[in-house]
Amino acid sequence: MNIEILNIGTELTTGRVLNTHQQWLCSELFRAGYAVSRQTLVADEPQIMAAVFRESLARSDVVIATGGLGPTTDDLTVETVAKLLGTKLVFDEPTFEEIKNFFEQRGRPVPDNARRQALVPESARALHNPNGTAPGIALFLQPNPFQPGANKSCLFLLPGPPRELRPMFTRQVLPWITREFPCDVVVACRNLRTTGLGESFVQNKIQEPLNALTEAGLEVGYCARPGEVDVRLTARGCGAEETVGEAERIVRSCLGEIIYGQETDSLEAVVVQLLASKKLTLALAESCTGGLIASRITDVPGASAVFLAGHVTYSNAAKETMLGVPAETIEQHGAVSEQTARAMAEGARQRAGADVALAVTGIAGPSGGSAEKPVGTVYIALAAQDGTTVEKCFNPYDRQTFKWVTAQQALDLLRRHLTQVRNK
Amino acid sequence: MNIEILNIGTELTTGRVLNTHQQWLCSELFRAGYAVSRQTLVADEPQIMAAVFRESLARSDVVIATGGLGPTTDDLTVETVAKLLGTKLVFDEPTFEEIKNFFEQRGRPVPDNARRQALVPESARALHNPNGTAPGIALFLQPNPFQPGANKSCLFLLPGPPRELRPMFTRQVLPWITREFPCDVVVACRNLRTTGLGESFVQNKIQEPLNALTEAGLEVGYCARPGEVDVRLTARGCGAEETVGEAERIVRSCLGEIIYGQETDSLEAVVVQLLASKKLTLALAESCTGGLIASRITDVPGASAVFLAGHVTYSNAAKETMLGVPAETIEQHGAVSEQTARAMAEGARQRAGADVALAVTGIAGPSGGSAEKPVGTVYIALAAQDGTTVEKCFNPYDRQTFKWVTAQQALDLLRRHLTQVRNK
Repeated sequence: MNIEILNIGTELTTGRVLNTHQQWLCSELFRAGYAVSRQTLVADEPQIMAAVFRESLARSDVVIATGGLGPTTDDLTVETVAKLLGTKLVFDEPTFEEIKNFFEQRGRPVPDNARRQALVPESARALHNPNGTAPGIALFLQPNPFQPGANKSCLFLLPGPPRELRPMFTRQVLPWITREFPCDVVVACRNLRTTGLGESFVQNKIQEPLNALTEAGLEVGYCARPGEVDVRLTARGCGAEETVGEAERIVRSCLGEIIYGQETDSLEAVVVQLLASKKLTLALAESCTGGLIASRITDVPGASAVFLAGHVTYSNAAKETMLGVPAETIEQHGAVSEQTARAMAEGARQRAGADVALAVTGIAGPSGGSAEKPVGTVYIALAAQDGTTVEKCFNPYDRQTFKWVTAQQALDLLRRHLTQVRNK
Repeated sequence: MNIEILNIGTELTTGRVLNTHQQWLCSELFRAGYAVSRQTLVADEPQIMAAVFRESLARSDVVIATGGLGPTTDDLTVETVAKLLGTKLVFDEPTFEEIKNFFEQRGRPVPDNARRQALVPESARALHNPNGTAPGIALFLQPNPFQPGANKSCLFLLPGPPRELRPMFTRQVLPWITREFPCDVVVACRNLRTTGLGESFVQNKIQEPLNALTEAGLEVGYCARPGEVDVRLTARGCGAEETVGEAERIVRSCLGEIIYGQETDSLEAVVVQLLASKKLTLALAESCTGGLIASRITDVPGASAVFLAGHVTYSNAAKETMLGVPAETIEQHGAVSEQTARAMAEGARQRAGADVALAVTGIAGPSGGSAEKPVGTVYIALAAQDGTTVEKCFNPYDRQTFKWVTAQQALDLLRRHLTQVRNK
């Protein structure tokens, strides 16, 4: 069974608007057990629209198109499809009633072009749109004129605005798909999130141990982002859940503590959770990350229970007055040094009365580097009750990636510490 | 002349990752005067990948493919294309040198599978990738085997990570396209960035004054993001530059100071530039934005010249000890109050010895609201030499949008202050 998505809109092909439908529809279908075989985007131009409708109906059982259903002159999807299928447009009274209601409920006059939106292809079924004026349209192609032998294809036309499209898909389209094309293949999926090793190294550690399972059909996918790599395990068919479970055990035993979470966990959420469960409080002292670690921590609901205070000490004076770093330490070893990082973490911990404190100092660039300490050099310190640890890292990236990767390493240093520490 | 984009990746077809390449590439090409005729997305499956490569090369002069160039086993683009074109893969020594350098510069060992990334189709040219290990690949199809009569088609294969793909496209792909397929239609484009008003209000202020120009072919586009709206003015053909220039004058006179920048300016970059040009220094005191303002400021190269210190004072104790907010102020008026915001800004300014200081305190949610001060309530204070201003805002959004919009309002309060202040 094949499903395709067609996105239509010149605002998308010119890059003016981000296409969020593709990800949302793919993700909803994947969760229901369906794989999207192809997604295509074209502009609001009838000739190319007709071509892609014809091509996708010739290949697929279900085609879901988005956009081009609005009231303005550049909305051409319904007309194009009717012409392609050789069916005429008819005025749909119940749909027009719904459109009138939509305006009346909002105390707004019914615009002239509203009648145009009640025109639907003769053979179609209109789909309710409680959140807008354009009805969706379902065209059951029984048989499918472009695919000999296909007797229950369906073409869905959905409106472009997400808050209209999404409920319409969930309540009216997906139930039809699951009824007409029951998903006979079980799909099991697990996403494990790692930090600290590059994509190649992660693969090197798990590829061979997983060999027997991959030969039996396990799919292993990798997704690398700055400072982290996801390992995705997918299995289909009978025993899929067991296969993925076994694969997860193997990956966990090979990768150990570099796995920080699963599915869509963020590293900062894992850290906040660990702090909360161990009843520990946190303080931060940031130089080169400039507040990014604090901002990531405070993105997590409930952070206020564990996060006491953050210092962004860009200047040397701020390091001295706000954190009590001795002027001699900076003079002797430099603002970017193991000694300064240590003093920053200890100062932040002591001043906030926190259980643990993280500090980072480094050279984000583009300027400020030297032969001895090039752009990308960074020291990360963790001060805890049992002492202070300092790690040196080298992150020679553009400024924003530098900040992100450094924040990642600092949060991970804290995570690894917290997994070992006893509850308070 | 036809350009197509192919995105490849099971992480995209399953909806796990958002496809940002499509918008970015379409937008860059549009700015250079080119329209993308079609974009297609498929999974990492050689059979369907080969089909879409063949189809798009049969239709188009330039095909730009993204993804599937990494070192792991699910990266199949290069092999698939080589097989389709009947060319073999050869080991490219200069590319392998670049890959080795990449790892050595970062003090990391060269992984075993790095050699695999130096395999390129015999007839191809490798494109430098200073930001990663996978080289890009350019295949000049002269002639194009899938399109009789086409004698200068080109297929570009670009790596998936944006910070590798984007500079490679800008420096190595776009120059080739503009040289081989010079754009014969003049396109003039201007993007004006605003903050402080919603999309409909922005449109209401400029739509009518622009009527004469839009009837003569000016295109006006709007792009709304949390806390800001872009107005994009586009004209084509003879006199395009004059049309857009005239439109810009009209928009600027209608919108006035809500325009903070143009093209891709960020609000934080505009603020850092204003501070630098006026020779003023900044301190920050953040409660509910949790370091996001500091992080945005320090995203700007050169921020260290103007940004002295930031405080993230999540707890009441931190507000008292770090900023000197009187305990009575918090007790009497609450941590989220005009008085506390004022004391935070004045404390931050005085302690850092800064010329200006911004402070924010509010309720990000999801919990912590009350009838009098619901979730989304926020106070923003600006302390300067001539006194302190406090603004009350209401941002009832999810946590991350709340933080972003609040940071936007605070930065904009500072921007409006700075445009009026004399040089120091």
